[in-house]
Amino acid sequence: MKPLFPTVAIVGLGLMGGSIALELKKKKLASCVIGVSRSNVNRKSALKRRAVDEAHAQIGPFLARADLVVLATPVRTILPLLKECLPHLGKNTLVTDVGSAKGEIVREASKLSCLFIGGHPIAGTERSGMDSATLDLFKKKKWILTPTSQVKATLRHRLMRLIRALGSEVLLMDPDEHDKIFAAVSHLPNLLAYTLMNSLCDFDRAKIRKMAGSSLLGMTRVASSPPEMWRDILLSNRVEVLRRIFRFEVELKKLKNALQAGDEKKIFKFLAWGKKLKDQLE
Amino acid sequence: MKPLFPTVAIVGLGLMGGSIALELKKKKLASCVIGVSRSNVNRKSALKRRAVDEAHAQIGPFLARADLVVLATPVRTILPLLKECLPHLGKNTLVTDVGSAKGEIVREASKLSCLFIGGHPIAGTERSGMDSATLDLFKKKKWILTPTSQVKATLRHRLMRLIRALGSEVLLMDPDEHDKIFAAVSHLPNLLAYTLMNSLCDFDRAKIRKMAGSSLLGMTRVASSPPEMWRDILLSNRVEVLRRIFRFEVELKKLKNALQAGDEKKIFKFLAWGKKLKDQLE
Repeated sequence: MKPLFPTVAIVGLGLMGGSIALELKKKKLASCVIGVSRSNVNRKSALKRRAVDEAHAQIGPFLARADLVVLATPVRTILPLLKECLPHLGKNTLVTDVGSAKGEIVREASKLSCLFIGGHPIAGTERSGMDSATLDLFKKKKWILTPTSQVKATLRHRLMRLIRALGSEVLLMDPDEHDKIFAAVSHLPNLLAYTLMNSLCDFDRAKIRKMAGSSLLGMTRVASSPPEMWRDILLSNRVEVLRRIFRFEVELKKLKNALQAGDEKKIFKFLAWGKKLKDQLE
Repeated sequence: MKPLFPTVAIVGLGLMGGSIALELKKKKLASCVIGVSRSNVNRKSALKRRAVDEAHAQIGPFLARADLVVLATPVRTILPLLKECLPHLGKNTLVTDVGSAKGEIVREASKLSCLFIGGHPIAGTERSGMDSATLDLFKKKKWILTPTSQVKATLRHRLMRLIRALGSEVLLMDPDEHDKIFAAVSHLPNLLAYTLMNSLCDFDRAKIRKMAGSSLLGMTRVASSPPEMWRDILLSNRVEVLRRIFRFEVELKKLKNALQAGDEKKIFKFLAWGKKLKDQLE
């Protein structure tokens, strides 16, 4: 069977880009995978692990060969990179990305003359770099696409089939709706993990380490992620993230006031409501 | 070998009390384990699982037979229960508890004429009830004791040996120091989990469930715990918990202000600092 996209170029060989490359090669979903990464370490690792057939330090005319370009770099570099790609793209080349915020990227990309479908695989871990890339990262995960009328349905369907072949379920979503939801279910929890760690900075580290139980470790796991990545995600989805922070502050204040007043009933109501919502998540 | 405490009474047959009982019987660390629980379900389950040799619905003269009494009920019921036990205790009976806050309990218990050593096994899960009780719950865990001069060293050492036999490492700590640290490493993270869930209440549940990734699930796991338990813990350690909430609010405000100002450097510094502290936890 002919591959859906015979030649795929992946810009950014970190956890995401690297794992996509590995999967494409392993499952023979592309005849040729071209990797692009500024990082010498990631390029070498990608070649050594046979995740890519060739590796380049920067975008260049070789992109003309690509049927699909995947931008898998930090979210705020995606638009500048897309613009850098433009002169090299064939007129049928589809471009997608894996950025965690979609509104701005999709809005700006739609003004450019290229075939772009925004994407967001819900498959991160707190690790990063090509060395953390792994097979099965996308298995049974959700992969959101935020298509616009710019791209014909046939091409969109081809991308959807590729993503399903990578192991993920495809969900189509409006980009702004995406950002609203992910501010709540992802960006807020992640920033709270960093905030929680920072709020402990007045303590002796050794003591914290000795006493930390599963609740602290579980809640701060994601604070091991690269700060550059989260800076960019938070800035890319600033308005929605700020909205969630305000909502969170209001809730925290409710609990604080109830605790200051020693109001047992209010405290119980607050916690019971939280548990109810949590139980509905399962 | 004669057991360290031949007869052990356990008041409260939930996750903690039930697991202690199971372990005592399994490892033959006591000749007789007496269970006390208001809950018919937990009493029946404890007898059926052979965690206890006898089960009572309330405290009574049978306590006179106990060499050790373990109070394993919600933290705010411990002092009233201890007072209820007093008339029945032998003059050499040691009493300990498993409450997550220690300052108030230890202070008040030291005014009573009984041999009391405050305890806190760092071994909870989000589950509860005798049915969740399990062997090995205390294996390789920490178990804090907050002894006072009220109890002689020989008796304290005997309790320490028993706890080690249950599988845990014993740490001795000042009760107020305990509360300060656990407000930070446990009580704050737990209340944040409930707060995070509450802050999502304006969203459609089905949507949240569909989109929730590992960060939200990991951060809110503990919000499945019984709200009664956490209401009591927060109230028992009110001053220190409020102090941590204030510190957390200050940190969250820093990030919020930086994000509102679009100050990339400040956002990065905040996240990088959080990651550094997190990495030191590992």
